[in-house]
Amino acid sequence: MPTSPVCHGHPDDPHAIGRCAVLEAGDRVAPNGPRFAVTYRVVADDRDQARARADDICFEQTIELPADLEPGCPLCRGILGRIEEQGADGPGAWRFIISYDAATAGGELTQLLNVAFGNTSLKPGIRIVGLDLPAAMHAGLGPGQGMAGWRTATGVSGRPLICSALKPMGMPAPCLAEVARRMARGGADLIKDDHGLADQPFCSFAERVPRVLAAVAEANRETGGNCVYLPNITAPHERLRARARRACELGARALLVAPGLTGFDGLRALARDDQVDVPLMAHPALLGGWVSDSASGIDHATLFGRLLRLAGADATVFPNWGGRFGFSREECLGIAAACREPIGGMAPIAPAPGGGMTPERAAELLAAFGQDAVWLVGGGLQRGDDLAANCRALRRVVEAACS
Amino acid sequence: MPTSPVCHGHPDDPHAIGRCAVLEAGDRVAPNGPRFAVTYRVVADDRDQARARADDICFEQTIELPADLEPGCPLCRGILGRIEEQGADGPGAWRFIISYDAATAGGELTQLLNVAFGNTSLKPGIRIVGLDLPAAMHAGLGPGQGMAGWRTATGVSGRPLICSALKPMGMPAPCLAEVARRMARGGADLIKDDHGLADQPFCSFAERVPRVLAAVAEANRETGGNCVYLPNITAPHERLRARARRACELGARALLVAPGLTGFDGLRALARDDQVDVPLMAHPALLGGWVSDSASGIDHATLFGRLLRLAGADATVFPNWGGRFGFSREECLGIAAACREPIGGMAPIAPAPGGGMTPERAAELLAAFGQDAVWLVGGGLQRGDDLAANCRALRRVVEAACS
Repeated sequence: MPTSPVCHGHPDDPHAIGRCAVLEAGDRVAPNGPRFAVTYRVVADDRDQARARADDICFEQTIELPADLEPGCPLCRGILGRIEEQGADGPGAWRFIISYDAATAGGELTQLLNVAFGNTSLKPGIRIVGLDLPAAMHAGLGPGQGMAGWRTATGVSGRPLICSALKPMGMPAPCLAEVARRMARGGADLIKDDHGLADQPFCSFAERVPRVLAAVAEANRETGGNCVYLPNITAPHERLRARARRACELGARALLVAPGLTGFDGLRALARDDQVDVPLMAHPALLGGWVSDSASGIDHATLFGRLLRLAGADATVFPNWGGRFGFSREECLGIAAACREPIGGMAPIAPAPGGGMTPERAAELLAAFGQDAVWLVGGGLQRGDDLAANCRALRRVVEAACS
Repeated sequence: MPTSPVCHGHPDDPHAIGRCAVLEAGDRVAPNGPRFAVTYRVVADDRDQARARADDICFEQTIELPADLEPGCPLCRGILGRIEEQGADGPGAWRFIISYDAATAGGELTQLLNVAFGNTSLKPGIRIVGLDLPAAMHAGLGPGQGMAGWRTATGVSGRPLICSALKPMGMPAPCLAEVARRMARGGADLIKDDHGLADQPFCSFAERVPRVLAAVAEANRETGGNCVYLPNITAPHERLRARARRACELGARALLVAPGLTGFDGLRALARDDQVDVPLMAHPALLGGWVSDSASGIDHATLFGRLLRLAGADATVFPNWGGRFGFSREECLGIAAACREPIGGMAPIAPAPGGGMTPERAAELLAAFGQDAVWLVGGGLQRGDDLAANCRALRRVVEAACS
C-alpha cells in the first residue's frame, strides 16, 4: 500500500500539505509558463507497459521520486513532465510527446538536455526522436549565421559548396599549408582542418593556422577566388574560447569544432561569443554512441540536425550513405530536413555530408541535398598526383550539375 | 589498382617522397615517444573481416586516409595506429589492442578521446573496452583527492559513506534546506543536490546553496556530526568554473558535476582548478547513450570507471543492479574495479552505486563494493513521515554490517 505523500521539506511540519507556509506567503507559485516538448520512442511489450514507462519518464526527469512519494505540493507537482500525445510506432514501440515547464531548464542548454534525457538516457529502449522548444526558449540558442553565413564568406551562390579536408595528421605545418594551397588553387570553396589536427607537438595550432591562412590567401590572390580555411579550434575546456578567438584574430573566416569533444554547450558558447563572429562547422567526432543503437540514444535527425542547430552550428558534418560509415539514406535526409525545417525565426543551416561524395554521384547528391549544402570531400581528392586538378574537376562537375 | 602514394604536401614537388626537404632539414622527426593503448571489441563475420576493421581503425583514427593514399612519408607513417594484440572475444567478436603515439593527443583530453574513438564511434559494432595510458600521459589527469578525499571531508572511516539526494526539483530553497537539515540530523555523511537542481528561477543556485550549507552546518552543530553537502555545479560552458568556485567560496566541501552535460573535459578542468580544492562526484546524466548498445559505444567499466577517473572524478555515480536501471551486477562490479585498479600513482576513487540501496541488501552490497564506496540512497529515504529516522536507521544498518 502506498504511503501518503509527505512534504519532508516544510520548514515547520512534516505533515504540512495543504497548509504550506511557503505557498501561503503567495510570493511563489508553481511555474506555469511555456513548455518544451520531447518526443520519446519507447520499446515495450505492450501498450500498458509503454505507458507505464512514459509515466516513469515524467517523474524520472523531474522530481526523481516514485509517484507515491510525490510530495503533493503544487510547487513540485507543477514540475512533473506531462504526456501530451501518444501513439504506436511500429511493432513493439510507442511514441510519447512529453512536455516540461520551460523553467525546469533554467535558461541553460546543459540543464535542458538534462531534463530531456539525463537519467533516462541510462534506460535501454528509450530514444529521443524529437525536441521542440517554445519561442520563449530560443533566446541564446540557434546558429549565429546559418547557411547564409557560408554564402557570404565564400561569395558562392547557386550551388553546393565544396569543402575539402586538410590532412593527414602527422604532416608538418609547412606541408599542410602546401596541401591547402593546392586545394585553394583547384577551386575548393572551403578547406577544413581534419578534425584530428589539434595542437600536437608535430603540428602546433600556433604554427599551422597562420601558415595555412597565408597559403590560402596567396592562392586566392592568384586565382581571384575566395577560398575559406576553417581551423579546428576544438580544445580543452579552459582554452576553447581563447583558441577560437585567436583563430579569428589571425584572420580565420570560419571555424571547425567537435561538440562531442567539447560538450554540446561548448558549441553554444562559441556561437554566442561576440569575439567569434564567423560561421561554425560542427564535426561529429565522439557523437556516434548516441545513434548506434536504434532503440536508445537520440535519432540522427534530432542529434545532428535539430540539437546541433539549436546549439549553434552553422553547418553539421555527418557521414553520407554510400561511404565508409553506416548511416542510411533516410537518416541522412532526415538530418538535412532538420537543418532547414522552420524553428521560429532560427536560420536554416548547411547539411555537410561527407564520405562517398564522388563526381559520379553529383546528380543524385544534388537531388538529395539541394543547393544549400556543403559537400565534404576528403581522401578522394588526394588520389592521383595532382590535387589541384582533382579539386577543379569536382568543382566543374558540381557547377555543371547546377547549371 | 592502388595509386602510388604521393606527398601532396611537399612544398616544392608533388612527387617528393624519398627526397623530402622537411625531413632532410633534420629538425623534425616522426614522433617516437610513449604510446597509449585502446582496446576495441570488434563485431565481424569472421577473423579476417575483424582484422580488416581493426586495420581500418588504425587509419581512421589518425591520418584518416585510405591505406593506398598513405603518403609514404615517415612523418605520417609514424602516426598510424598499431595493432599490438588481437584475440577472439566470444561468438562473432574479436578484441584488438591498438596503440597510438602519445603525441597524437597533444596533451589534451579532448584530443585523446578524439584519437581513441572520434570517428570510429560512428561505426556500429566497435566498442571501446579498455584505455591505458603510459605514465608520461598521466600529468594533468586523474582525481585530485580520490577516495581519501571523502574520508578526510567526512571524518568517517571503516564503512561506506551514506549519501542522500536533495530533491525534488520544484521545491523552493527554504524547503530543500529543511530536507537537508533532517537528513544531516539523521546521520547522512553526504548530501548531494539532485542532479536536476541547477539554477532554475524557482530554486536558484544563489539562494539554494547558502541556505542548504547553513542548514547542514546547524545540524552538524546540534549532532556533533560532519555531514557534507555537495552542490550541483553543472553549468553552461562559460559559467562552469565560476559556479564551482562560488560554491567553494560559500563553504562547500565537495561538489557534484555531470560530465555528460559539461563534456568530459569540463570535469577535468574542475579537477585541475586550484580554486576548486574539494572532492568531485561525477553524475552519469546524459552518458547513457554510450553504454546502451552492448556492441558499440564504451563499456561500463571503461566509461564510468576508467575514463571518469582519468578525467578527475573522486567518486563516480552509477545505477546499481536491482534498482530501476538496467545495469547488471557484472557491469557494476566492473565499474567498481576500475575505480581502484592501479594506474601508476593515481588515487583510487569511490564507486557510488545508487538505486536499490536498501537496508535489506546491506550485507550483499558491502560484500560487493567493500568499505571504500559511497552508497547513494535517494527516494527510499523519503518514504514514511520521518526523514531523519530513516537516515538513522540506514546508518545503523551500515555500521552494524561493518562492525
